[in-house]
Amino acid sequence: MKVIEWLGERVRIIDQTRLPQKEVYLELTSYQDIASAIREMLVRGAPAIGVAAAYGIALGALEIKATSRSQFMKEFEKVARIIADTRPTARNLFQVIERMLKVAAAGKDIEQIKKALVSEAIKIHSESHEADQKLSQLGAELIGNGFSILTHCNTGPLATAGYGTALGVIRWANEQGKKLKVFATETRPLCQGARLTAWELKRANIPFTLITDSMAGYFMKRGEIDCVIVGADRITANGYTANKIGTYSLAVLANAHGIPFYVAAPTSTIDFSLTSGYQIPIEERSPEEVTHIQGVAIAPEGVNVINPAFDITPSQYITAIITEKGIIRAPYGEGIGGIL
Amino acid sequence: MKVIEWLGERVRIIDQTRLPQKEVYLELTSYQDIASAIREMLVRGAPAIGVAAAYGIALGALEIKATSRSQFMKEFEKVARIIADTRPTARNLFQVIERMLKVAAAGKDIEQIKKALVSEAIKIHSESHEADQKLSQLGAELIGNGFSILTHCNTGPLATAGYGTALGVIRWANEQGKKLKVFATETRPLCQGARLTAWELKRANIPFTLITDSMAGYFMKRGEIDCVIVGADRITANGYTANKIGTYSLAVLANAHGIPFYVAAPTSTIDFSLTSGYQIPIEERSPEEVTHIQGVAIAPEGVNVINPAFDITPSQYITAIITEKGIIRAPYGEGIGGIL
Repeated sequence: MKVIEWLGERVRIIDQTRLPQKEVYLELTSYQDIASAIREMLVRGAPAIGVAAAYGIALGALEIKATSRSQFMKEFEKVARIIADTRPTARNLFQVIERMLKVAAAGKDIEQIKKALVSEAIKIHSESHEADQKLSQLGAELIGNGFSILTHCNTGPLATAGYGTALGVIRWANEQGKKLKVFATETRPLCQGARLTAWELKRANIPFTLITDSMAGYFMKRGEIDCVIVGADRITANGYTANKIGTYSLAVLANAHGIPFYVAAPTSTIDFSLTSGYQIPIEERSPEEVTHIQGVAIAPEGVNVINPAFDITPSQYITAIITEKGIIRAPYGEGIGGIL
Repeated sequence: MKVIEWLGERVRIIDQTRLPQKEVYLELTSYQDIASAIREMLVRGAPAIGVAAAYGIALGALEIKATSRSQFMKEFEKVARIIADTRPTARNLFQVIERMLKVAAAGKDIEQIKKALVSEAIKIHSESHEADQKLSQLGAELIGNGFSILTHCNTGPLATAGYGTALGVIRWANEQGKKLKVFATETRPLCQGARLTAWELKRANIPFTLITDSMAGYFMKRGEIDCVIVGADRITANGYTANKIGTYSLAVLANAHGIPFYVAAPTSTIDFSLTSGYQIPIEERSPEEVTHIQGVAIAPEGVNVINPAFDITPSQYITAIITEKGIIRAPYGEGIGGIL
């Protein structure tokens, strides 16, 4: 299975909204298609959004008919803006856009810029994959044989178009022959845990138990959780982490039970411009995600809903941040600076 | 709307599994019907289970054809056993069965026993309703004007066949003219918050926001929650409380944020025979409740699921227990003994 694949002048993706019931692949032929695939979460997960954005921008560049460099750049910036406007929280999206804008600015002529952008997108994808593997390898050292690990949302190949972040760490430890047991939270409202993590763990043959988000404290209290590992959508310079809604609650619970809480993410997720987690824009999504599950209403009509897609976990709750450049521990300000 | 109604030789209930989409009433004519209505959660909520059980036992007694008192008692004990075997956690169920067995044992002849059991069931229902109102009135004193209150699961009229417990406190405070804002958690897996609490709050015209269970910490951290109020399925002599899965996590989160955490329940929920919360039997329900929502699969087939319906909140997380006989504060051992 390839989550995102560059096919020259089109991009093939697996539609994650259809999983696990159906494995549907789509070929996207325009940058607008990519933008809506990101917005509608056919592609999701911060690193996978970054990869899709890179290919989307490359596709957009190839589509531009302009003959002057300045006209090209004007249209190219519009492409970048539309890709940027899809989702606000994941750092990887903006990091990729910055890289692509830099490549375009450095190019001599239109043809050379187009080629360079395609190469850069492919490079972003392969670097992202490599970062996944490195951080998974490093992170696996934190996982003991026989560990029972709680994870939230989805952070495997689907989320990264690579090896995975938090789930990559679990996969690597599993491949090392460690006996593991995973607790996967279903991750309401969009059930990425129940739909995607369960699907990936099943394929990887890693024993797991699916639980509702509300059960995490119960299993922690019973001493059934050795550590928690989650991914990240954006990490500030001082280690505050934006991740799927519910992550903060899990971090507070882990802290109350003396359970290590790890964040696994490539350094492309770190936003050095921010020193407070509360500066991170939190996407608020449609109320229907809460009132309906796969089209079926579970609440009375017209109820008021607030649906923040992410929350912020302060660094004091994070035992370590696992990146491809090393494992960072508090104090995060220095630690994060030190590894780069 | 009457949640449970005694109609002589039958019992009329609202089918809570069909709400909020459909308001369906059923007439149950045998104690086995009542037992399966409790087991399948057409009637749920600890106090409502108690009321339904009382009527179920009365129905069962009326059905007995025995002519000797000893034969009657033998068959009556079987009725009680079948009603007792429906659900293990709610104390109210067993408290009611004990009352009904005592009434039967005290009766002179079969006809007198049957009459006494019907009277006792009706008395249990009206006492339960009165207890709701008293505890709601007492609890409302803890609610300030302008409070924003988080509640979990469903504890209104549907859950009690009366005025409500935690939701009763909220209703009373609302009727006092206090401006309130409620956050209702959807309460996975069976979504009693989204389906039932939302429906009841809407009917009561109390402003509320529906959130997923995973969002509680987010709103607490933002300072948007003034207190948490939940119901209880069983409270031990030292104040440990069994309640809907997820309650324990909310209590730990409330504690971490310095937010008062209240349990509202009638004294019929208190089990004086237990001094450790971990002696309370926790019902484990079907995996399908987690893997499916209203019949729609959200997880791959055949995944492993653990589905505890309740968890235990240690007394140190509970700011106060609101009962019809008074508000109990720590130390709970003495406090609970002292009010009775």
